[in-house]
Amino acid sequence: MADNEKTVQLSHGGGGKEMNRLIKSIFFKAFNNPILASEEDAALLHFEGQAAFTTDSFTVSPLFFAGGNIGKLAIAGTVNDLAMMGAEPQYLSCSFIIEEGFAIKDLKAIVGSMAEELHKSGTRIVCGDTKVVPKGCADGLFINTSGVGRVLKPQISVKNLRPGDAILVSGDIGRHGAAILMAREGLTLESELVSDCANLWPVVEQLIACNIEVHAMRDATRGGLAAVLNEWAGASNVGINVEESKIPVCDEVKGLCELYGFEPHDLANEGTFILAVPGEIADGALEIIQRYGHCQQAAIIGHVEETHPGKVVLKTPWGSSRYLDLPQGELLPRIC
Amino acid sequence: MADNEKTVQLSHGGGGKEMNRLIKSIFFKAFNNPILASEEDAALLHFEGQAAFTTDSFTVSPLFFAGGNIGKLAIAGTVNDLAMMGAEPQYLSCSFIIEEGFAIKDLKAIVGSMAEELHKSGTRIVCGDTKVVPKGCADGLFINTSGVGRVLKPQISVKNLRPGDAILVSGDIGRHGAAILMAREGLTLESELVSDCANLWPVVEQLIACNIEVHAMRDATRGGLAAVLNEWAGASNVGINVEESKIPVCDEVKGLCELYGFEPHDLANEGTFILAVPGEIADGALEIIQRYGHCQQAAIIGHVEETHPGKVVLKTPWGSSRYLDLPQGELLPRIC
Repeated sequence: MADNEKTVQLSHGGGGKEMNRLIKSIFFKAFNNPILASEEDAALLHFEGQAAFTTDSFTVSPLFFAGGNIGKLAIAGTVNDLAMMGAEPQYLSCSFIIEEGFAIKDLKAIVGSMAEELHKSGTRIVCGDTKVVPKGCADGLFINTSGVGRVLKPQISVKNLRPGDAILVSGDIGRHGAAILMAREGLTLESELVSDCANLWPVVEQLIACNIEVHAMRDATRGGLAAVLNEWAGASNVGINVEESKIPVCDEVKGLCELYGFEPHDLANEGTFILAVPGEIADGALEIIQRYGHCQQAAIIGHVEETHPGKVVLKTPWGSSRYLDLPQGELLPRIC
Repeated sequence: MADNEKTVQLSHGGGGKEMNRLIKSIFFKAFNNPILASEEDAALLHFEGQAAFTTDSFTVSPLFFAGGNIGKLAIAGTVNDLAMMGAEPQYLSCSFIIEEGFAIKDLKAIVGSMAEELHKSGTRIVCGDTKVVPKGCADGLFINTSGVGRVLKPQISVKNLRPGDAILVSGDIGRHGAAILMAREGLTLESELVSDCANLWPVVEQLIACNIEVHAMRDATRGGLAAVLNEWAGASNVGINVEESKIPVCDEVKGLCELYGFEPHDLANEGTFILAVPGEIADGALEIIQRYGHCQQAAIIGHVEETHPGKVVLKTPWGSSRYLDLPQGELLPRIC
């Protein structure tokens, strides 16, 4: 095989023969569906009623990590943004920025993961774009996915938290951030810590099917649990009280946090979400998440109050309390 | 002003306080609208009927060029992809990948151009994403815009060309590619060659309002006129005959092509589109484009035939004919 068949070349982004070949042999093959195959300037879709629309660019480093790769992340991330608004993920776009010299076999592996993840969520890629930049002008591969979906459960909003709501987390926190940190530092723990990177639509679909009244729902990505809770407290002008001892954190994440001076609630997650539901139905919601989401670690971690509006109060295991602030500074760059 | 207030820092992409500040002070300020300001995980939109959905990542180098910059290009490019499907551009997403150290003043200038271009097309940015990568991991700034719009004129398609159709071009070709080439080579011609970068919705809206039967329509971006015509000939399984002498090309583009060995029909355009309409209404369509699109150079350049299916035949000014092939090789990387 010639060298230029093993790696992506500038000509693969030129809009000519080579680009057509790359798109057809890799992207169309993996993502095959009639809308994408129509090759129009834009995909034609049918919609009725309220739709959700979201976008995310993925620049994660390294591209492959324990529990996933940039491709899996790019699909799960955008599917999750739609799911968090109570919307059924339907159509995604996908845009690649590829550095000249990127290995075709890595591209195929990443695209393969994307196809697998699409399949799990019943979503399709209906339009795309491919750019190639010269060596040194990008770091391997960046992927943007945007998505649209039909809103099945309206009125989920950062502004909808009310005093008396319970705060739930769908699993143990910090695993994605910790997995990226491990991969980057070349650490291999004896344990099998993997990213939580996953598509959340199946569990959200169950919550909707069971007619659970969700006030707010968000996946705790960059900035982690701390960022979500602070955003909610501010947007809804309520106080959120959280008990540190109730927040599920696995031993590996605890250990890495001690080693590197991070807090688990600041670390990113990519398949873990936070819910606010009326206190009286919190146990029911928890059971659904645990049973259908395979989220054994899901837990009720706090509640919403009128006091301390705009603030998140963390009660430590020793009985003292402190404000849990929005993360500040560099933390871990390029975790998603 | 401190150094870290003049340039983008890694912490601006961290999901914490600094990112919130950057988003609010620059992006929300320029793109302000109620849907964006809601700050949910996804934007909520209302749709009825058929919608078009498209995506594009922009990696143009240099970021600023005669006639535009990456921001203007990112809005016009995605608006044009929707317009080319007969869809009214309504909602855009916008995602930035910024290299650490990028000048805030350049970011503001680019975002300002985006806001201006949005205004011209009556489109809004309703959701976004910001990533910052360490110095050396990207080349300044990449922007992805995705867009959705309502289809007003259905049945425009690469597969719809029919024998007897006339082929029109909305202006003189190759100016964007030539402007980028000039900027990159540090050339300053005496003339005032600028990119054709522009939003095509206003002229398309007029064609729709006048009920012009458009069979196919496409902006001639990467791969230029040659790529569009070849794609059409293949997808519709027809022959396309074009007269070289009728294709409008300005003297500056001709000169640069001679100097660098390019063909004008291979060069990218960013505000010039190709149309196929029934031959008998071609003059009417041309008049609308010239009058409302300020496209004095618009011209009928050829027609569709049954012979040579899948091929584009170029008739030279000397009476000879040759196949006009899809561009091949590197051409100009990073023109959009």
